[in-house]
Formats: sequence, C-alpha cells, structure tokens
Amino acid sequence: MKKIPIIKSRRVRSTPFTSRIENQGLSGYSVYNHMLLPVSFGSIENEYLHLKEHVQIWDVSVQREIEITGVDSDKLVQFMTCRDLSNAKLGKCYYAPLIDGNGNFVNDPVIFKLDEKKWRVCIADSDVLFFAKGLASGKNFNVDIYEANVNTIAIQGPKSENLMQKAFGDEIKELKFFNYKYYNFKGVKHLISKTGYSKQGGYEIHIENTTSGLELYDYFFKIGKDFNLKAGAPNLIERIEGALLSYGNDVDNRDNPYECGFDKYINLDSNIDFLGKNSLKKIKDEGIKRKLMGVKIEINHINLTEEMRLYDEKNNDVGLLRAAVFSPTFKKVIGIAMINKKYWKESQEFKISINGKSAIGKICSLPLV
Amino acid sequence: MKKIPIIKSRRVRSTPFTSRIENQGLSGYSVYNHMLLPVSFGSIENEYLHLKEHVQIWDVSVQREIEITGVDSDKLVQFMTCRDLSNAKLGKCYYAPLIDGNGNFVNDPVIFKLDEKKWRVCIADSDVLFFAKGLASGKNFNVDIYEANVNTIAIQGPKSENLMQKAFGDEIKELKFFNYKYYNFKGVKHLISKTGYSKQGGYEIHIENTTSGLELYDYFFKIGKDFNLKAGAPNLIERIEGALLSYGNDVDNRDNPYECGFDKYINLDSNIDFLGKNSLKKIKDEGIKRKLMGVKIEINHINLTEEMRLYDEKNNDVGLLRAAVFSPTFKKVIGIAMINKKYWKESQEFKISINGKSAIGKICSLPLV
Repeated sequence: MKKIPIIKSRRVRSTPFTSRIENQGLSGYSVYNHMLLPVSFGSIENEYLHLKEHVQIWDVSVQREIEITGVDSDKLVQFMTCRDLSNAKLGKCYYAPLIDGNGNFVNDPVIFKLDEKKWRVCIADSDVLFFAKGLASGKNFNVDIYEANVNTIAIQGPKSENLMQKAFGDEIKELKFFNYKYYNFKGVKHLISKTGYSKQGGYEIHIENTTSGLELYDYFFKIGKDFNLKAGAPNLIERIEGALLSYGNDVDNRDNPYECGFDKYINLDSNIDFLGKNSLKKIKDEGIKRKLMGVKIEINHINLTEEMRLYDEKNNDVGLLRAAVFSPTFKKVIGIAMINKKYWKESQEFKISINGKSAIGKICSLPLV
Repeated sequence: MKKIPIIKSRRVRSTPFTSRIENQGLSGYSVYNHMLLPVSFGSIENEYLHLKEHVQIWDVSVQREIEITGVDSDKLVQFMTCRDLSNAKLGKCYYAPLIDGNGNFVNDPVIFKLDEKKWRVCIADSDVLFFAKGLASGKNFNVDIYEANVNTIAIQGPKSENLMQKAFGDEIKELKFFNYKYYNFKGVKHLISKTGYSKQGGYEIHIENTTSGLELYDYFFKIGKDFNLKAGAPNLIERIEGALLSYGNDVDNRDNPYECGFDKYINLDSNIDFLGKNSLKKIKDEGIKRKLMGVKIEINHINLTEEMRLYDEKNNDVGLLRAAVFSPTFKKVIGIAMINKKYWKESQEFKISINGKSAIGKICSLPLV
C-alpha cells in the first residue's frame, strides 16, 4: 500500500493532543467523526505486544460525545436504542446499539446518564448528532442536542491501574468496570470511566478542561516510566482477537444487532418505545440468516480495505470478511466475517482469493481464543 | 506540517478510481463522507493554474448520493431544506441548504429529482443518511432512504466542454448549467450534470455502472492529450477565490444560511413545510449579527487547521478565519471568514496572529476579485 499523507484542514479536525502525538513518533492516521485518529507508531505488532504487557495512553478524542438535555431527553435517548435504559443509573456506562427503523445499526456508542435529564452518547464513526436531531424534530421532543467539547484519552493495558493510582490516588482502584466517577487532578475535576477499546483493562478520561487535560497528558509521561508507559492507539490485532466490534468495519447500516450476537442489548419484552422495535421483533421471529464470526486464514499478511468474499470448494458464498490482520499470537491472519447460516460450524473451511491467489481459512467463534 | 500517511480500512473507504489516481501521482488525501478524497498531486498552485487554463478529471466519489423514494419522498426532501422544491423539475439540479430546527446547517447538497417520487441528494461531508432516517422515522413518512452505489467523476476547467464533446458527441453542448441528462458511452447510460466544485465550468458524471465508469475514466486520458487533460482534485485556491463554500470548513452546524448570503435559497413566503422555518423567520426578523466575507492577508503562507481569531487594533473580536490559502493571483493569503457586523466594511483592516507573529489583513466581498 502506498503511503499517502493525510492533508489536515478545519473539516478534518485535529485534537488538543495532535502535536504531542506527532512528536511521539506517530506513523499513521485514520479519520473518525471528522477528526484525526492516531492509529500507529511504527509497528502495530510491537504495539500489540506492548499493550498486552504494559500500559499505553491513547488519543481517542474522535469518540465524540453528543449531549442530550431537556425534558424529553430520556425519551429521545431511549428511542434511539434497543437497550432498555429506563433504569439507567448515574455512574454507570451503557454500551447500547443505536438502530434505524429497519433494525439496522446507526452507531454503537457507550451512553452515560450524567444527571437527571442529561445524557452523554460517546459515539462510534457516524453523525449521531444529526440522527438525534432528525428524530427529535420529527417527534417534537423538547431537547437540546449538541456535540460537547470533550476530548478523551484512554489509559489501556494491564498496568493501567498502577498508573492511574499514581496519578489519582487509591480511590481510583474502587472504580468498577463500566462505571464512571469524577476525580481530581491538581484541583480540576475529570470524568473518568473504567472503559476502553481493548480487553487489557483500562480507563477513559473525558476531558472538558483542555488546559488541565494537556497537563495531565504530560504528567502521565512524567510518572509513567516505571510502568513502561508509551503513546499508543486502539490496536487492530488486539481488538479483533477480543472481538471489540468496529462500526464501519465489522458492521454497518446493512446489519442488525442480532447478527452481531448482541441479544443481551436488545430488550423487546419491556414496554420501552424505540425505533426499529417491530423490525427487531420480526428479525427475531424469523431468525437471522447470517452472523458475525471469527476466521483464521493460513497466510501471514493481509491489507483489507474492502469487504472480501469467502467461498467454499464449490464456489458458493460462505460469507464476507470485514476486518483482518496478521496476529503474532495465532501466527496467521485473523479476522471478523459475516458468515451465512449454512456455514456456522466451528472449523468450517473456506477459501479466499488474495491478489489472485487462493488461501484456506477456518471459521471460529468470537472472541478468538 | 508533518506528512503522516492515512491508513486505509473498510471504514475509510477507497473508491473505484483509487488505484488509478494513486498511479497518477497523488500526493495527499482527505477523508470525506467516510471515503478517501484525493486532494493534491504535488502542488496545488500548479494544479490551480492548470485548472484555470485546461481541463482536469477529479475523483469526487465522496460526494455520496442519498436516494429517497416512496410516496412521502417529496415531503421528506422538502422538509429537510429551506429551498422551495415544490416545483422541482426532472433534469434540473438544485443547490439546497439542509438545516436543523435551529435554522443551522446540516449539509449543503445538490438535489436531483430523478423521477416522480425519486430523489437524489448529492451530499457534502455529513451523514445525511441518518438525518433523513431520523426525520422520516419521527414523522412517520413512508419512504426508503439509502446510499446509492454511485461514484462521481468531475470534468472541470475551460476545456471541459471540448473533452466531453469528444467523448459524448455534440449533444452534450446543449446541456445547460445546473441541468442533468443521460448520455451514452459505448452503450452504457450515464447521468451527467453540468455542475462541479469549481468556477471554471464543467460536468459531473454520476457513475452507477462501475465497469463502464472505469473504462470511461481511461478513455478520457486516451482522448484528452489535445486538451492537456490531467488528473486533479477540488482546488483550495480556486474554490476560495470563487467562494464555493465547504461544509465543515467555512460553515458548520453553528451557522445559518443567512450568514452565508444564501437568501435566494431560503423560501419563507411559500407555504412549504420545512424544519427550522420558524427559526429562520426569527433570524430574518432580528437580522444577522455576523456573515461570511472574504479576507486578504499580507503573508505568503498559511496552514490553517482550525478556526483563527481576527482582531482589531484594540484587540476586539473582528471575526473567525475558517479557510485560507496563498493565492498566486493575489500574491497574498486569501480566505473566508465569519465577520462580526461592526466590521462589515470593505477594506476594513484586521490583525491575525500566526505562529506568534502578527500579520495585517483586509476584509473584502465574496467571491474574491
């Protein structure tokens, strides 16, 4: 793949951390929610090994936070997701698929109830701002909807707790998985959640006070040597192994949450009102015909930029490969694919054509083990 | 500015023309509507001079086309825009601001009525798909909304008519500005509009048949030597001079169409029903307090990646610079800025601080002349 630079502009937004990250050896960007997402510092394999052993700090400001306030904010937030949020509690984080009228994905954010009638939707890569505005206008909901000026850094890896303890004190150790709370850094309050886009454990710091956030970023590197802290980024290998889905890669607006194994986030039996409820009922009744599964392919390199067809020995469609990467752990290419029902067998073989050459792979469950 | 490569993925989509464009010497990408937008082939100044004299072919597949069909499609399309489309005609193209309930921009597409109850919305960089789905669901409109598999190439420059005539015959010369029609290339029908993101004249070919589109792309280069055809891209210098606005750069969801001088695209007096109509009435009654204007700054380089403050000799806010570039024609930096009412005077002076140094500029009207 040719290395072609990204041209920055106001439309492709920088983050408060951009200059720091670039000085730390950034080697590749993606763009996500109209903003720069750092993706690598030279070798995603080395970063993968480091992430699984130490601790990293990531600039994930691209996880934009849409705030919804006002008397009808509960109604609107619930209307956007198939997950029952009627008993949502302050201090808890809710992974919640947003779906359209057909029951298909619009986004898969983590939702925080910040206060009575105040929600924050930490989004994947699509304009939830305008989806929410469209719904609210159409339904005459009395709400305010805006993108908050929040930029998030993630502290991820097995040593993340040690690092956070050193920065915020022992209290941080009591924060439970998918909970959030406010913590002080030199007199400034920061919302910290025990969340993040890795399976290695960690935190996300949702920075509203940019000056303090930059100071905190630098402070982490001052105190982080003991834990071998490095600047990093969400890691393609680690997230595929852990089956942390990526909207736009693994799933998109043609897919529904049943096809992703998200049954536990779909609440059809409570009396909540949400868009696509009847569609999801129908999908459940009829049963899905394809679902996301893992794959292992007997090759040592892949560069996936579009969906790739998987087929059987008779050239029938097995499914579509949506994301893939070489894993140093499995010593082969691993991936996430939408597999047709006929082929939902563990260890089912398939073929894939890469640059004109045929390779062999096997289907497996997710997460990959 | 450091040159950091864009990392491709399925989420940051390639176009059917990507490999060709890269082989033609592409030197920079942007990302637009979750897709790669080629922006330069080495020197935007050289490309600017070439565009104003010859003809270029641009891969503008990023101008995604949202199709809206069904019995309520007229109602939905009208509800999204302040421009009166009640008399929209087949064969005509309509530049139409999409606005939210506050009267602020969501997008600024060109809209085509393709057939009775079939519309195409050729969008700028925001997810109109989900805005439209939200509105339609909220209002219980009976419509289908989807992103069409259409990839657009633009033929732009003073020699564009000659090139198109050679490819499609004399008939193409009858196509008027902001009209569209179907034309044949080797037996395949292509929708061609006399539109494009330059002031140099030209066409956009909305390609549904990818195989034929690729053949056409190559064919243009076969026949284009006489007209000095080159691969190009929307040009920052040319588009700022011509005041072709860029959603996400010059304007965003904090701005309304009156502030952009789009009065002629706002129809408050007809009885059409659209989102934000009352807000726009209020804005009109109260009068706007800032508007987009041109600026000329006495420096020979700028690299604008975020809004920059303009101020007067007493350090009062004059406005915000949204886009800027050095122009070889004006021999200074030119730009587009949101200017506060007090400073709406042609030749009004202002200051701007660039890398710690103060520079002097003057306000001017748009387009720049």
